[in-house]
Amino acid sequence: MMNMFHILFLFTLLSSTSYASVNDFCIADLKGPNSPSGYQCKPPNTVTVDDFVFSGFVAGNITNPFNIALTPAFVTEFPGVNGLGISAARLDMGVGGSVPMHSHPGATELLIMAKGKITAGFITPSGPYVKKLKPGDVMVFPQGLMHFQVNSGKGKASAVLAFSSENPSAQLLDLLLFGNSLPSELVAQTTLLDVAQVKKLKPLFGGRG
Amino acid sequence: MMNMFHILFLFTLLSSTSYASVNDFCIADLKGPNSPSGYQCKPPNTVTVDDFVFSGFVAGNITNPFNIALTPAFVTEFPGVNGLGISAARLDMGVGGSVPMHSHPGATELLIMAKGKITAGFITPSGPYVKKLKPGDVMVFPQGLMHFQVNSGKGKASAVLAFSSENPSAQLLDLLLFGNSLPSELVAQTTLLDVAQVKKLKPLFGGRG
Amino acid sequence: MMNMFHILFLFTLLSSTSYASVNDFCIADLKGPNSPSGYQCKPPNTVTVDDFVFSGFVAGNITNPFNIALTPAFVTEFPGVNGLGISAARLDMGVGGSVPMHSHPGATELLIMAKGKITAGFITPSGPYVKKLKPGDVMVFPQGLMHFQVNSGKGKASAVLAFSSENPSAQLLDLLLFGNSLPSELVAQTTLLDVAQVKKLKPLFGGRG
Amino acid sequence: MMNMFHILFLFTLLSSTSYASVNDFCIADLKGPNSPSGYQCKPPNTVTVDDFVFSGFVAGNITNPFNIALTPAFVTEFPGVNGLGISAARLDMGVGGSVPMHSHPGATELLIMAKGKITAGFITPSGPYVKKLKPGDVMVFPQGLMHFQVNSGKGKASAVLAFSSENPSAQLLDLLLFGNSLPSELVAQTTLLDVAQVKKLKPLFGGRG
Amino acid sequence: MMNMFHILFLFTLLSSTSYASVNDFCIADLKGPNSPSGYQCKPPNTVTVDDFVFSGFVAGNITNPFNIALTPAFVTEFPGVNGLGISAARLDMGVGGSVPMHSHPGATELLIMAKGKITAGFITPSGPYVKKLKPGDVMVFPQGLMHFQVNSGKGKASAVLAFSSENPSAQLLDLLLFGNSLPSELVAQTTLLDVAQVKKLKPLFGGRG
Amino acid sequence: MMNMFHILFLFTLLSSTSYASVNDFCIADLKGPNSPSGYQCKPPNTVTVDDFVFSGFVAGNITNPFNIALTPAFVTEFPGVNGLGISAARLDMGVGGSVPMHSHPGATELLIMAKGKITAGFITPSGPYVKKLKPGDVMVFPQGLMHFQVNSGKGKASAVLAFSSENPSAQLLDLLLFGNSLPSELVAQTTLLDVAQVKKLKPLFGGRG
Repeated sequence: MMNMFHILFLFTLLSSTSYASVNDFCIADLKGPNSPSGYQCKPPNTVTVDDFVFSGFVAGNITNPFNIALTPAFVTEFPGVNGLGISAARLDMGVGGSVPMHSHPGATELLIMAKGKITAGFITPSGPYVKKLKPGDVMVFPQGLMHFQVNSGKGKASAVLAFSSENPSAQLLDLLLFGNSLPSELVAQTTLLDVAQVKKLKPLFGGRG
Repeated sequence: MMNMFHILFLFTLLSSTSYASVNDFCIADLKGPNSPSGYQCKPPNTVTVDDFVFSGFVAGNITNPFNIALTPAFVTEFPGVNGLGISAARLDMGVGGSVPMHSHPGATELLIMAKGKITAGFITPSGPYVKKLKPGDVMVFPQGLMHFQVNSGKGKASAVLAFSSENPSAQLLDLLLFGNSLPSELVAQTTLLDVAQVKKLKPLFGGRG
Repeated sequence: MMNMFHILFLFTLLSSTSYASVNDFCIADLKGPNSPSGYQCKPPNTVTVDDFVFSGFVAGNITNPFNIALTPAFVTEFPGVNGLGISAARLDMGVGGSVPMHSHPGATELLIMAKGKITAGFITPSGPYVKKLKPGDVMVFPQGLMHFQVNSGKGKASAVLAFSSENPSAQLLDLLLFGNSLPSELVAQTTLLDVAQVKKLKPLFGGRG
Repeated sequence: MMNMFHILFLFTLLSSTSYASVNDFCIADLKGPNSPSGYQCKPPNTVTVDDFVFSGFVAGNITNPFNIALTPAFVTEFPGVNGLGISAARLDMGVGGSVPMHSHPGATELLIMAKGKITAGFITPSGPYVKKLKPGDVMVFPQGLMHFQVNSGKGKASAVLAFSSENPSAQLLDLLLFGNSLPSELVAQTTLLDVAQVKKLKPLFGGRG
Repeated sequence: MMNMFHILFLFTLLSSTSYASVNDFCIADLKGPNSPSGYQCKPPNTVTVDDFVFSGFVAGNITNPFNIALTPAFVTEFPGVNGLGISAARLDMGVGGSVPMHSHPGATELLIMAKGKITAGFITPSGPYVKKLKPGDVMVFPQGLMHFQVNSGKGKASAVLAFSSENPSAQLLDLLLFGNSLPSELVAQTTLLDVAQVKKLKPLFGGRG
Repeated sequence: MMNMFHILFLFTLLSSTSYASVNDFCIADLKGPNSPSGYQCKPPNTVTVDDFVFSGFVAGNITNPFNIALTPAFVTEFPGVNGLGISAARLDMGVGGSVPMHSHPGATELLIMAKGKITAGFITPSGPYVKKLKPGDVMVFPQGLMHFQVNSGKGKASAVLAFSSENPSAQLLDLLLFGNSLPSELVAQTTLLDVAQVKKLKPLFGGRG
């Protein structure tokens, strides 16, 4: 009863929506301009399965003062998540490693433990919420709140991070406060830290003044 | 008391918002790039009333195996709905016609009966919701759920469809499963259908393999 | 290979999401409180297919000064659209009938012609957009803009209206301006209408003062 | 323990997010196309602090028939608010001044009294909400509703307005109804005003017909 | 210069926002009613750190016909993600295991490989996107699209799944089509499957008819 | 031609939407539960104009260590803004006063200068954006970013603040870091501050440990 005629029919039936189907996804054209809703879409006929796969989600180099590595799969590394409101990162921590205080404006973070022990927490005006996490634990850090992670075990630790934004920019507190050329006195005044403390930390984060 | 001076005044008062008023609407420039929030806007000074009117909302040709015609007024046919989160389509069904199982990712559908009798339904993990509809009935198919419509009367049937998206791409189940070049074995494994069933349907939907 | 064991397995696999599936839809509990995102959901185990069907979408009585009838299927009549961002109404117009100037805050309207001829339009600071519509035409009235419809044919006219909100409250200009107890002088001052004009229209719309 | 090595490390750690940080803000490129979510972003390396500051928020000239001045800081004057869903304006009113009936589609307005006395209100189908305001008062006008402000004191009055949109286009009722070339008869029919009233007001607002 | 007086001052300064800070998060009160935006919030003074931690993210039992286990951390298991638009699940697959075709209305899924090899894909009207994934790979399945995962390696496989919704209900195709009491003829008509195929699969998924 | 009959007609025409008009606004019932979209709505028939007016927008007491006063009109003080995505506050600063570093998760802030001189700024990974502001200036602080304000003039200063949220909870950095019972060593480790610095500031903000 049915035959190749159907094929033509179905493609005709759907032809009006075929180009529009680009909106099922919108692979970021990173060379084009950005907008409040994200990057422009690559032309749909140039999209391949590799646009939906990110292949560098591996342990990074932790040979650095923080003993950590953060490997992001955000929209700039993984254009397939453009407009979809989700992204991920891998966190690796050596012994004693820590991710210092930071926040993600407008993105909630999930930390999914993979290995070791991590003490993690976020702080709010009504108090801190801190927990020692082990594999099998998932912790949520609500959007925009200041949080941290510390390797509190005796070996390496690692975790998968998921974010409710394709572009969860990290606001690292020390880099914000000390990695700039604001006068140390202004930083001290607006943080209530001692000027000496500010001047001590500034050079470590590339700041001047 | 008031005179032509007012005119100038009012245009001055509003001059700062006149160009910005393009945002009251944003007629799609279909030749430009798409973005997660939709197409770029046509320049406001080129907009005419015809951008807000779609004139092809008429019965389509139902001489096809499904005995149906779907006439869309989505953003690609009707650029005036760009960014406004709504669109429409006209459904015409011959005797015995049916719209097979499909879903619209992210769009809710309203079916507003115009003529005849249509048995329509959607299916969820907690069960199917199926109803025989007649003129005077409106049925809602919540976003992303699998649904179908069958002409269950003795004559032609027609309905108006409204969608909560300007671009409610249709995911027609048969076309998804059989209109591709995936190995029949993989399709069978992931649908639990018999391989023979898959191989039988593949050619009808343009699939290979 | 597969058997009834599967049934148990699958229900187990999905048991964690079965109650949660209420979020695929949220039938309004109209007796409960409202919230910024809509009404609370009816308990999922009390939902039936009739919650998804509205059956009074028929021509209303046009024996009134405007020669029109508007039959809504909004959330208060059709609890199934709660939270889904879409609703519909049926418009019937007698000879000479008109829907006076009005707007819907936050809802875009589609007018889908069914019968007769309707002159419809909306007005913006940069000008009016007015068109004489016939069956086969669809017109969009972007959200929040002032618009009107007039039966400009020689017989009855009717149309289906779809809205990008489940609760597109109508702000009817005359009722707003004249159906209240504000002093006529204040209305005149803020509309620049003559006080006599205001005083003439007030009683027609239930206003005083 | 820590030294300049840290600087390099931190910049490396954050290098993947440094370009992406443009999404923390998106300064409007007003020369580029608009989109449903707003203007494209200026290249991040061209952004300066002045993009985040608007400096013309001063009293405007009230020598006009309405005795008022509205000084906007919307996205077209203040590109830094692009995509951020907020903007402001300054309202100055001479003795007897008034802002006639108008609405903002999709934007809520806050009026924050600074000087004098203003009688303000909005009107809904269930009634008007009107209040005589003095310094220390803040009034909210929910999105899309028709509202007005009148200087009801004996001296000048001023207020700060804030909007829940970066582009709260004003729909001034008189300009909509009378500042166009629609036939006076059509305006009268759809507003129920007398034709004579329409013809009287048309020339004051630049309308014809 | 500063002393305990400060403490009192700061708590006074913030007292107006202290109760409001509940909105930084909204722990689901699962016993209360649901709404279109999610569950009501637990009283803020009853919230503890354990509301933000889910501790059952471990390998589930794969002794079942699909050789898989899905361990969800959705809002019903993990009330801390209520209103935050993100959740997670753990997927474990035995040799030959597969997650059959399914979709998540309104939720995008990220699959982050942990162990083994998984062939995963999603299908759209313009074609399938299928990839054989290994540890280090992340794949995105855009919202509402039909997708599957198959263990294509020689040993066990596992992955972390993240979703852009706190309640990503799974629409498992077989359960939808065959786990119901719809007449087999209706299912066949709307899927174009053979009636015999439908009748064969119905009992396996708890369906009748 | 028209008469009191019209009144009845119009109320009939709108009766279906009259109760629904509560959704034009949703005055917070602060005694009821909160939800991800805000508080439940007061019954519409109990709403008065005073629900839309906040009358305490006056200079607060600046006799405190920071020489500042912040007077909020957020949803908890001003229930009329519930669900509308906007609120305001008044900032008064004595000579030398400062608002220390803080952020608002999910809310953008506009600072509208009223009197004096304020040096204000926000800091991002790509640098600080700081400006000395005077009356006539408006500055925007994009959502979730760390910012501060300092009275940099020789007299008092004041400003109006507007927020893109009805509940822009303030995360004051010092209170977060030092006003808690976390061990000083943990705070030092996650901020890279000296332990002595932490121990010195803890008592000033009510912290212990």
